[in-house]
Amino acid sequence: MTQVKAWAAPAAGAPLVPHTIERRDVGERDVLIDIAYCGVCHSDIHQARDEWGGAAFPMVPGHEIVGRVARVGAKVTRFRPGDHAGVGCLVDSCRTCDPCRRDLEQFCERGPAWTYNSTEMDRRTPTHGGYSKQVVVTEDFALKVAPSLDLAAAAPLLCAGITTYSPLRHWKVGPGQQVGVVGLGGLGHMAVKLAAAMGAEVTMLSTSPRKEADARRLGASGFALTSDDATFRRLRNRFDFILDTISAPHDYDRYLGMVKVDGAMVLVGVPPERIPLHAHSLIGGRRTLAGSLIGGIAETQEMLDFCAEKQVVSDVEVIPIEKINEAYERMIRGDVRYRFVIDLASL
Amino acid sequence: MTQVKAWAAPAAGAPLVPHTIERRDVGERDVLIDIAYCGVCHSDIHQARDEWGGAAFPMVPGHEIVGRVARVGAKVTRFRPGDHAGVGCLVDSCRTCDPCRRDLEQFCERGPAWTYNSTEMDRRTPTHGGYSKQVVVTEDFALKVAPSLDLAAAAPLLCAGITTYSPLRHWKVGPGQQVGVVGLGGLGHMAVKLAAAMGAEVTMLSTSPRKEADARRLGASGFALTSDDATFRRLRNRFDFILDTISAPHDYDRYLGMVKVDGAMVLVGVPPERIPLHAHSLIGGRRTLAGSLIGGIAETQEMLDFCAEKQVVSDVEVIPIEKINEAYERMIRGDVRYRFVIDLASL
Repeated sequence: MTQVKAWAAPAAGAPLVPHTIERRDVGERDVLIDIAYCGVCHSDIHQARDEWGGAAFPMVPGHEIVGRVARVGAKVTRFRPGDHAGVGCLVDSCRTCDPCRRDLEQFCERGPAWTYNSTEMDRRTPTHGGYSKQVVVTEDFALKVAPSLDLAAAAPLLCAGITTYSPLRHWKVGPGQQVGVVGLGGLGHMAVKLAAAMGAEVTMLSTSPRKEADARRLGASGFALTSDDATFRRLRNRFDFILDTISAPHDYDRYLGMVKVDGAMVLVGVPPERIPLHAHSLIGGRRTLAGSLIGGIAETQEMLDFCAEKQVVSDVEVIPIEKINEAYERMIRGDVRYRFVIDLASL
Repeated sequence: MTQVKAWAAPAAGAPLVPHTIERRDVGERDVLIDIAYCGVCHSDIHQARDEWGGAAFPMVPGHEIVGRVARVGAKVTRFRPGDHAGVGCLVDSCRTCDPCRRDLEQFCERGPAWTYNSTEMDRRTPTHGGYSKQVVVTEDFALKVAPSLDLAAAAPLLCAGITTYSPLRHWKVGPGQQVGVVGLGGLGHMAVKLAAAMGAEVTMLSTSPRKEADARRLGASGFALTSDDATFRRLRNRFDFILDTISAPHDYDRYLGMVKVDGAMVLVGVPPERIPLHAHSLIGGRRTLAGSLIGGIAETQEMLDFCAEKQVVSDVEVIPIEKINEAYERMIRGDVRYRFVIDLASL
């Protein structure tokens, strides 16, 4: 075991403080990564504050991890020391169930090993995230990050990137399609960039007129205010696909009215409450309402390769680890464009 | 114009009474059908009672029409006098919009001409349904009914049949799949027969233990009581596809929990109110919730041909037209197995 410096939430809702964790010795199929940057995801806050229940403390959050490979086990074939590598939301899964065999490890029937606030597949060893200097992970769950990608700006691809890439790909978004993105935050800004990079015509659907310039800079060719009722009439039956990144309550029926016959609206935001839905909104147009959860490891690699090819990264504000508690407060206020990334050199 | 005997609702909620309507002269692309039987759909009741709003009276309901071709126009190529023919929910559409060009006339952007309580595409001439002796329809919206199908039992295929066939086909239900059907009524009993005929393993999900024997006779290999909480735990992640035929409020989240990763639940029943839905139910398994509305003309023909090949028809109770008001009352009580069909010889 190795002692590794980290920052942790000592208890639910308590400010994060310096902490030391143990990382396992590098096994023959493991990769040791010196963490350079770690993105800060909203789910870090939810879990550090135990808002989803069942959290384990002290907790070292962080699942948008990028860095450089420091050492590899004897049987590792895909990584060499010095390679840029990443770790996303998953560090292991059962590998034998139907979803795992279909490269959908996020839906592992035994429950995957999440990168933090979880356990390894032994169901005993706690996992710790990327607010730390190093991580040890099996090479099967490590991702290759092309050297052409800026490491700090690539970090959020590991969660915000794959969370938006996966549904865009699964529902076959591409040239000639009209895509709506609901909400311009950490997820929404990646959705705009990725959908535009896939060749779709993107419209940002936002409550805030101040977001228009940014939306267009990120790749949206349209912008519509969802605070204006006329938007829902004007864009009726407009979109082949809507990606809904909003975690606050909002009216699914109204948004579904903007989806074409046979189109889909896919949720990646999770409002805390149930949202009333009328069957008519789906039946009148054979519309789909679906959900999507990050992506499997193979698809995460595909996304990183796509981003390298298209030079797509996040818009980030790099902070030292000492600013993490302040960053949480600013994220809750929506005061970040569009992702905080911790520079672990500060630790 | 021809005077044709019918029964009509003279006003919203009033009992149906004898009435006379006019049918247009047989145009060069029209087919005149002597109606033999007409199924009685729940939507007949909703519309005769103006429960959906905007109804026009006097109204002659009925969109599960089968009979024999009596005369054809000079340019009709697909029908000859004596042929068995049917008319479903649609008698025309714009034929030029995107959904029409994709054989989805039910989603015609101009709004299709529904078989009754609607107008022809001139938006003036009222349409009247199958509680009548004859109907004139363009051959493009007339369906061929194989002579091997019992006419009375085939009538409900024109609405209940296509309403359930279309989503089963669209979501590619077939051998090796686990299919749940929610509710054993007019739609549900067709869903069981059709899904079983497509080779799927069908489980009936019902609140009523008295339905089990019937469900198994119709082709279900499984039966589960949705009044029992344990059902939702036991069948968690079980189904590739659930077809939900229920029009009463029920908890979508619980049913979605029985859908596998990447599976779908499709609504064909329309509860009057909005149903609360949690995003987690969709996100945790990339599940789809969708809706489906009857089917296009080409698919309705495909369904009729499939039913002829597999000898699938409805379970019907044939009634004379004089019993129609009583039949409505019995349908509201759920007292029919599983579809009333009017014998128009009684008119």
